[in-house]
Amino acid sequence: MTTHTFAPTRYHTTMGTHPAALQIAPGDSVRTSTVDASGRDATNQVVTTGGNPQTGPFYIEGAQPGDTLIVRLDELTPNRDSGWTSQTLAANVVDPDLVAALWRHPEGVPHTPAFWDIDTQAGTATLREPATQLGRLALPLRPMLGCFGVAPTRGQAISTATSGQHGGNMDYNGFVAGTTVFFPVEAEGALFSLGDGHALQGDGEIAGTGIEISFDVTFTVDLIQGQRIGWPRGENATHIFTVGNARPLDQCVQHATSELVRWLRDGYGLDMHSIGMLLGQAVQYDMGNMFDPAYTMVCKLPKQVLNAATRR
Amino acid sequence: MTTHTFAPTRYHTTMGTHPAALQIAPGDSVRTSTVDASGRDATNQVVTTGGNPQTGPFYIEGAQPGDTLIVRLDELTPNRDSGWTSQTLAANVVDPDLVAALWRHPEGVPHTPAFWDIDTQAGTATLREPATQLGRLALPLRPMLGCFGVAPTRGQAISTATSGQHGGNMDYNGFVAGTTVFFPVEAEGALFSLGDGHALQGDGEIAGTGIEISFDVTFTVDLIQGQRIGWPRGENATHIFTVGNARPLDQCVQHATSELVRWLRDGYGLDMHSIGMLLGQAVQYDMGNMFDPAYTMVCKLPKQVLNAATRR
Amino acid sequence: MTTHTFAPTRYHTTMGTHPAALQIAPGDSVRTSTVDASGRDATNQVVTTGGNPQTGPFYIEGAQPGDTLIVRLDELTPNRDSGWTSQTLAANVVDPDLVAALWRHPEGVPHTPAFWDIDTQAGTATLREPATQLGRLALPLRPMLGCFGVAPTRGQAISTATSGQHGGNMDYNGFVAGTTVFFPVEAEGALFSLGDGHALQGDGEIAGTGIEISFDVTFTVDLIQGQRIGWPRGENATHIFTVGNARPLDQCVQHATSELVRWLRDGYGLDMHSIGMLLGQAVQYDMGNMFDPAYTMVCKLPKQVLNAATRR
Amino acid sequence: MTTHTFAPTRYHTTMGTHPAALQIAPGDSVRTSTVDASGRDATNQVVTTGGNPQTGPFYIEGAQPGDTLIVRLDELTPNRDSGWTSQTLAANVVDPDLVAALWRHPEGVPHTPAFWDIDTQAGTATLREPATQLGRLALPLRPMLGCFGVAPTRGQAISTATSGQHGGNMDYNGFVAGTTVFFPVEAEGALFSLGDGHALQGDGEIAGTGIEISFDVTFTVDLIQGQRIGWPRGENATHIFTVGNARPLDQCVQHATSELVRWLRDGYGLDMHSIGMLLGQAVQYDMGNMFDPAYTMVCKLPKQVLNAATRR
Repeated sequence: MTTHTFAPTRYHTTMGTHPAALQIAPGDSVRTSTVDASGRDATNQVVTTGGNPQTGPFYIEGAQPGDTLIVRLDELTPNRDSGWTSQTLAANVVDPDLVAALWRHPEGVPHTPAFWDIDTQAGTATLREPATQLGRLALPLRPMLGCFGVAPTRGQAISTATSGQHGGNMDYNGFVAGTTVFFPVEAEGALFSLGDGHALQGDGEIAGTGIEISFDVTFTVDLIQGQRIGWPRGENATHIFTVGNARPLDQCVQHATSELVRWLRDGYGLDMHSIGMLLGQAVQYDMGNMFDPAYTMVCKLPKQVLNAATRR
Repeated sequence: MTTHTFAPTRYHTTMGTHPAALQIAPGDSVRTSTVDASGRDATNQVVTTGGNPQTGPFYIEGAQPGDTLIVRLDELTPNRDSGWTSQTLAANVVDPDLVAALWRHPEGVPHTPAFWDIDTQAGTATLREPATQLGRLALPLRPMLGCFGVAPTRGQAISTATSGQHGGNMDYNGFVAGTTVFFPVEAEGALFSLGDGHALQGDGEIAGTGIEISFDVTFTVDLIQGQRIGWPRGENATHIFTVGNARPLDQCVQHATSELVRWLRDGYGLDMHSIGMLLGQAVQYDMGNMFDPAYTMVCKLPKQVLNAATRR
Repeated sequence: MTTHTFAPTRYHTTMGTHPAALQIAPGDSVRTSTVDASGRDATNQVVTTGGNPQTGPFYIEGAQPGDTLIVRLDELTPNRDSGWTSQTLAANVVDPDLVAALWRHPEGVPHTPAFWDIDTQAGTATLREPATQLGRLALPLRPMLGCFGVAPTRGQAISTATSGQHGGNMDYNGFVAGTTVFFPVEAEGALFSLGDGHALQGDGEIAGTGIEISFDVTFTVDLIQGQRIGWPRGENATHIFTVGNARPLDQCVQHATSELVRWLRDGYGLDMHSIGMLLGQAVQYDMGNMFDPAYTMVCKLPKQVLNAATRR
Repeated sequence: MTTHTFAPTRYHTTMGTHPAALQIAPGDSVRTSTVDASGRDATNQVVTTGGNPQTGPFYIEGAQPGDTLIVRLDELTPNRDSGWTSQTLAANVVDPDLVAALWRHPEGVPHTPAFWDIDTQAGTATLREPATQLGRLALPLRPMLGCFGVAPTRGQAISTATSGQHGGNMDYNGFVAGTTVFFPVEAEGALFSLGDGHALQGDGEIAGTGIEISFDVTFTVDLIQGQRIGWPRGENATHIFTVGNARPLDQCVQHATSELVRWLRDGYGLDMHSIGMLLGQAVQYDMGNMFDPAYTMVCKLPKQVLNAATRR
């Protein structure tokens, strides 16, 4: 149960079978940092090529294809006082015939970033520039990890712009500190990596960014050997949940719902009849992102309901 | 500001230009009742053909195409002690290759309904039969209206199985008492109707039903003349929201987001630049249904954020 | 086997249970005319409100819900020398981030129609105005019916802007003279209507119009009593085919493929195993429209293959 | 202008920056062979792991990111006398509620392959086993390449189960001998590879396979330096075309149509107004596959129309 302190010197913009940055054991924790989506670190310097550069990969001893990797997000803290966002909505989240209007203002919307002051003491993100009708709009911080996961199947190396069964760029604002996430191991050592912190993010990441910022991160890993899962799963104080990454959103829902069905069946011993009755009236869904090449939907069940349903 | 008491004797399974059941004025309230989706009333008798039969339509004096009808849901109360649900998940909410497994149990899942005891005093719905691993699972009541709206454009009569810009079978579990809903008026008198109460419902109505039950309902109408909206809008204690009904879910999101963009622009005077900055980091989405011919997604903005953004 | 000559005086922009314009018997033919999508007739005068106004409905004696109506398109002839199209692509057929460019020309693309000279002798449509880089581009005529069908289920009246199981605005360029089409009868008398002729149309109707023009039409009806079909079916010299209308295109494919599966099973006595083997290697698909509220895909099987597969 | 003869000894199931199997120059031709989707060669022996194993990659001298690779498919010939297919339709091409019926036969549909006799002299594929109602159904050969392309952007390695802007598993039955295909070069040397031959295939590959078989292949490469394209493009005797790979089919259409718009604009000098007018009435679409993780649609323009439109 070691706690490693790891200072990254190299980053990757794919998830694949890259050389391990650090080898750790199940039960170990790691204190490290992530750069922002554009490759800027805690000092706001560009230290690597942008596109959700990842810290890692971390090699977990004993992890083999067919296992499940457990990652608990212990701490996610913005480590500088300024983050950035895009200034307009993504074209794909509005009706096609409204797209042109998004940019057709008196002067157009700039393609440069907007900047937000981040105050971790006060717990706020405050719009600094440009000047808009919003003035110095302040929103509550809710730091979340946009992109993290493991090496995918078949020796693939998949861009950190997108996501899949291996995790990746899911941009779900429920991935906050205190959340435990489960990934299917597909390569020896699992090769977990992480990056793309957001000080906060609206549902769907419909502007194409959260408030992009570098993080100090602590996480703890564990391993379930010989248990194969299909999609990322998670757990927090109130819910268990599953994650589906695909297009369109319908298919995300199908993946996530199917994974929760399998979890309830194989993990909790419920039969399909009981699962149908239970989810039908108690399921909940969150939208991760509707911007990246693969969208993300999350299927959730309150633990309170789960406990009532499995108390036998 | 009259409060009418209306006992329905006839129901419709389309929304269209049916003869008015009652003529009311802006500001008036109506106390009435709705039968359940299968046409059963407070005494559990079948009194009309099933398929979300509607109480109404109510003719609102002065309502003309191009106006906006306001409906406040004052009270939604199950008026009998038993509701029903389906016993399995819909085929379209799981991966295609899991569909067969949904029904492939030792003995198959029955196509008959399951029954739930409804206790409005205790605020619970408790599974009564059939016997499953869930036992007498109890869930908190959250009565909501599944299907309501106005006559659609162009003299159409549209089935209450589906939904559109006129409202209809949206099956969104946020349509609870205390919510105000706005509809685009497309026919003289608006011709508002309502039905399909659910004692509670999971997100997405993924079993194809909520807990289906008859309701006692009170609602109050008002009118905004000369203001045309595109899709149903709503407001509750904490949020303003818009509703998109279509397939796939992506298109629901596009409709709902576009409608919220227009509301912020035309109703709150925000420019597109400010709207993009605001929604990008503060928008929220709920899933209405992913079962009916048209799916439903809801786009929301917290009033707290809206107030901060428009306090100038 | 009467041939009726019918001169329409009234048109409808929904398909529903409108009063019969003419009552005919199975086996009868009708010579009539259709106005163009905007309500202009053979003399180019606006004679009715636009939006795919329909000639009819024709009441077919003996037709009952659960029957199948057969309509053979005997003749489809443009009856004036000028048709019109839109001047730009629809926003939904290109990538969202290309939408703005569609209209962002030096001078923008006009929202007025373009006009084409129609020469039925030469068999050509020739661009007349406006002046573009295309000059007097000439394309071969292929007259097709954009919108036709029967009254839908449940007493609905559905806009002729869209389509469904009842047919409607399918905008499939394979609906040419010589084609036989089958519709599910859902109302007494079937109530067949037709309109929206195109002198020719690209696949998908991606500009939102074909070359819109009025037609002289001859069609012949027949009836299969007691045979219920799910979606429009068709037959021409070379293929049998089925039509799926929905969104997204994936769902159109699912509807059309399922309907062809049922046709092969129930109509030709093939088992599911043989159907899978046959369609897997011999199926063909055409795109109807990707513009209207419901899109359209067509699933086809060559008669040569069908005959080889069922020659037993 | 060398013609290389290359006997593969190693295969890859991703497209990525693998070591070059052979270095060739623009203008060169290669005679080689491909194994079938399951890794079986001309002698029907398994020589490599299945999953569309690729012959190559071929390093094209001088090819740099931002260039366009041209590949002419000169010869595609099945090189053994037996191919195989699946025995049932894919679950995603039928309505969700028909899925269970696909496999619910008296005895179920076997998951083993069906076998077809391939006679390249007679030009036929004839069903050999199992016994079905189809007997010895014979279909005309139309050999096509299912999976081919170049190394993708960003150093990715992408599974040959799927497709993208780099090509990959497009499973389009128009990729026959005589076709020229253009790919965006994203890695030094382009790193072209090819495999997954089908003796013939229905539209959409809706059974999840064509008639899978090993090929003798001859192809010729060339290079356009400094011209960047977005998606695969192609040309045959009658058409120019573009390929969009994504989900749902709607997005494939958007990608392919956008790419053809750009081709007409940048390659043929047409303005957006003329392009809209031209494609609206003359465009054609083919369905590649609706089975793989990314589906494929093809957007085509007849050369006859293109010539008429650009003859100035």
